[in-house]
Amino acid sequence: MDKIQSLKGMIDLIADRSNPDDFAESIFRTEDALKNIFVNFGYSEIRTPTLEDADLFKRSVGDSSDIVNKELYSFLDKNEKNITLRPENTAGVIRSVIEKKIDVNTHKFWYLGPMWRYERPQKGRYRQFNQAGIEIIGHPEGVAELEIISMICSINNALNIKNSVIKINHLGNQGTKTNYCNALLEYLKPFSSQLDQLDQSRLEKNPLRILDSQNQNTQKILKDAPTIKDFLSDESLTMLQVLKDTFSKDCSIQIDYGLVRGLDYYTGLVFEVISDELGAQDAYLGGGRYDNLSEQLGGKNIPCIGMAIGIERLALLSNIDIEDKTLVSFIILSSNFEEKAYKIAHDLRTINPEIIIDVQLAEGSLKSKLRKASKNNAKFAIIIGEEEIETNTIIIKPLVEKNSEQTVMDINEISSFFEDIT
Amino acid sequence: MDKIQSLKGMIDLIADRSNPDDFAESIFRTEDALKNIFVNFGYSEIRTPTLEDADLFKRSVGDSSDIVNKELYSFLDKNEKNITLRPENTAGVIRSVIEKKIDVNTHKFWYLGPMWRYERPQKGRYRQFNQAGIEIIGHPEGVAELEIISMICSINNALNIKNSVIKINHLGNQGTKTNYCNALLEYLKPFSSQLDQLDQSRLEKNPLRILDSQNQNTQKILKDAPTIKDFLSDESLTMLQVLKDTFSKDCSIQIDYGLVRGLDYYTGLVFEVISDELGAQDAYLGGGRYDNLSEQLGGKNIPCIGMAIGIERLALLSNIDIEDKTLVSFIILSSNFEEKAYKIAHDLRTINPEIIIDVQLAEGSLKSKLRKASKNNAKFAIIIGEEEIETNTIIIKPLVEKNSEQTVMDINEISSFFEDIT
Repeated sequence: MDKIQSLKGMIDLIADRSNPDDFAESIFRTEDALKNIFVNFGYSEIRTPTLEDADLFKRSVGDSSDIVNKELYSFLDKNEKNITLRPENTAGVIRSVIEKKIDVNTHKFWYLGPMWRYERPQKGRYRQFNQAGIEIIGHPEGVAELEIISMICSINNALNIKNSVIKINHLGNQGTKTNYCNALLEYLKPFSSQLDQLDQSRLEKNPLRILDSQNQNTQKILKDAPTIKDFLSDESLTMLQVLKDTFSKDCSIQIDYGLVRGLDYYTGLVFEVISDELGAQDAYLGGGRYDNLSEQLGGKNIPCIGMAIGIERLALLSNIDIEDKTLVSFIILSSNFEEKAYKIAHDLRTINPEIIIDVQLAEGSLKSKLRKASKNNAKFAIIIGEEEIETNTIIIKPLVEKNSEQTVMDINEISSFFEDIT
Repeated sequence: MDKIQSLKGMIDLIADRSNPDDFAESIFRTEDALKNIFVNFGYSEIRTPTLEDADLFKRSVGDSSDIVNKELYSFLDKNEKNITLRPENTAGVIRSVIEKKIDVNTHKFWYLGPMWRYERPQKGRYRQFNQAGIEIIGHPEGVAELEIISMICSINNALNIKNSVIKINHLGNQGTKTNYCNALLEYLKPFSSQLDQLDQSRLEKNPLRILDSQNQNTQKILKDAPTIKDFLSDESLTMLQVLKDTFSKDCSIQIDYGLVRGLDYYTGLVFEVISDELGAQDAYLGGGRYDNLSEQLGGKNIPCIGMAIGIERLALLSNIDIEDKTLVSFIILSSNFEEKAYKIAHDLRTINPEIIIDVQLAEGSLKSKLRKASKNNAKFAIIIGEEEIETNTIIIKPLVEKNSEQTVMDINEISSFFEDIT
C-alpha cells in the first residue's frame, strides 16, 4: 500500500533530548524562553482561532500585499463561507478586541502559534510556521515604544543571540507617509522604464515597498532618492534617538531611514531585527505601531504597537541550555508481576512529582536497559526483578558517578529516600 | 464600516489573571499541568503539521465514520492538492513515524494542539478545539497498558477532577471483533425495521457502533444482545481485571463490556473517562490500542496504544491553583525622563529575571495606578516621579501587608534589595 507523505513545506517536529543540536528541541526551548519573558513583562496570553473570515486579511494586511495576493490558504467551508487560515496574528487580535468590546481597557497581550502561507519553502521558511508576538493595545506613542525595544533586548540576551542588529525607523503619521510617497514617486518616475516588473507594480500600488527591492539596479537608482528623514517631525526624530541612546549599551541598535515594513498598516515606529547568520532572509523579528488598523476593521480608534517573531528562524540563532529535570530510569525485569512493579513507579510519582520517572516499556536485557538509561542522562536506575518482588525490595543503581555501588533497599524505605532526590 | 466577526464555533481565549474562574486561564493552566505530567513520565513532544493529505484520514479514521463523512475541513490548495485540517492527531503521528523511518525504535510521544471538526457547536465542543494526547509506539500489550491507566490516574489527581470514572473494555484481536460483529448482526437483524435511519446504516457499515446509539429504543433492544465478554480470551479478561485491581485504590475504574470506540482502528484495550458534570457529551478522555493502523497506512506492523484528551472539556472539570509568580508593579509618574525611569525597570529584569515586572504604560493618577497594581495582586509597587529621577532614588510601596510604610531607596541600593525578592 502507498505510503502517505507529509505536505510540501510542512515539517514534523520530534524532540530528541539526547541530542542537544536537535532542531525540534531547539524550537521548543525557544518557545519556552519566549513565554517566560512575556509572562515576566506582565503580559496576558491571547489565543484567537486559526481560521478567520477571509475579509479580515483583505482589510488588514491589504489587497496589494503578496500575502493576500498569492499566499493565503483560503477556501469555502461546508456553509459556503469564505474562510482563511491566518497568515499572521495581529489582525485576529484586533478583530477580537473589537468584537469582545474589550477596547475600553488597555491590554498587553502575547500569543504563540501556527500560521500558514503558501510560499516557496526555503531555509527557516515553511508553509506552516510558528510565530510568537506581543500586541500593546490602547497606548499612544511613548513608554510603549521603550517597552517593546526593552523586550527585544531581553529576548536577544536571554537566548544568547550573537551578531544581531535592531534596526529602527519612524514613518510619521499618515500625512508624513503620503508626502514622502509623493516625493519618492516624483523621483522614481523618470527611472520607471528601468525598473523590473515587480517594482513597476509597486510604483503604482505602494511606492514605499520599492525601498525593500531585492533588485540591485533598483537599489542603485534609490541611492539619491529622498529619505523619510526629511519629512519627519522633530518629535519623531527625537523618539528614534532616545530609543537608540537608552538601549545601545545592551543591544546593537541602528537607525535606518530606508526601513519600511511590508504591511500597509504601519505608522510611527517600525523595526526589524536581523542577523547575517540567516542569509538572504535575514529578519527574525519585526513590528511597529499601527494606530489605524482598528478603525480599518470597523472598531474605535485604538493606538497599538506590536511585534512578531519567527520561531523557526529564532531557533536557528538561539543558544540556550535549559537545565534538565532529574530523570530516573525505571527497569522492570520480570514479565510476571509487572503490575506489582509498575505500581511502585505509580506510587513514587505521587511522592516526588517533580522527578521524571521513565519506565522502560520494551523487553530486553538488563545491560541494554542500563545503556538506554545512560543515553537518556538518567541520574540513577531503579531495578525490579522477580526476586525483588518476592522480597519486597528494589535495587538502586547510581549512573552519574562512576564506580558507585548499587544498593538493595526495602520497599518501605524508598519513600523517604525518594522524597529527598533533587 | 462593518465589523468582522469570529467564525461560528471558534472562540477567542483571553487570559485574565485577576479572575480565577476565567475559562481561558483554566484552559492554559490545564495545558501546563498536562505537559508537566507528560514530561515527568519521560515522554517526548511530537508536533506534526495541522494540514495533511486528505487520504490520510480516509485511510485511518475510516470512510464510514462521521468525522470523515461530514465533519472534515477539506479543500484544494493552490496546486489542486486535496488537503485536510486534522480532526485528530493519531493518524499524523503514525504517518510521521512511517515517513521518517523512526519505526525501528520504540517511542513515547506527547502532543498538544488545535484540531478542527465542522460540528454543531455545543457546551465544551467547538469547531476548533484543543487536544492533548500520548502515543506509545512499538510496545505490544503489557506494561504499556499499565502505564496509560497510571497516567490517567495521575491526570485526574493532579487536576483534582471529582466524580470521574475510567471505563475500560477489551476488543480482543481482529478475529474477536469479526466474530462478535457477526453475532451482534445475527441478533439485531430481526429488529432491523425498528431501528432509526442512523442505526440502520451502522448495521450495514459497522455494527459495533450501534452500541453507542443515543436512541432509547435501540438501547432497549440491546439489553439482551450478546456481549463481547463471551468472545474474549482469558488473557484479555485477565488484563481488564489486573488494570482494575492495580488502580482502583487511586481512581474509580470500571469494566464496561458495552464500551466501543468511534474509530475503526481500535483492537485490544479501549477506554473512556467520563464525568457526569459534562452532561450528555460526558467523555473528556479516550483511547485504546491500535496495532493495525501502521500497516493500514503503508508502514510496518507496529503495536501502538494511545489516548487523546479534550482540553476544553477537561478545563471545565479541573480545579488547579497554580502558585503565581511574584509581581511588581512599576509606576512611572512623569512623562519627562520616562526613558530614564524605564531603563531602571529594564536593568532590574536582568538582576532577578524570575520576578514579573509589570510596567504600567497608561497615563493616570498615582491613585488609579496603585488600584490597578492591587487588582493584579502585585506584591509591591515601585514608584518613580520627577523628584526621584533628579535625586537618583525610587519609592518602594508594599501592597500585601496593610499599613506597611513606603520607603525611599537610593538607586544604588536597589540591586541588592531586588536580588533577594522571592
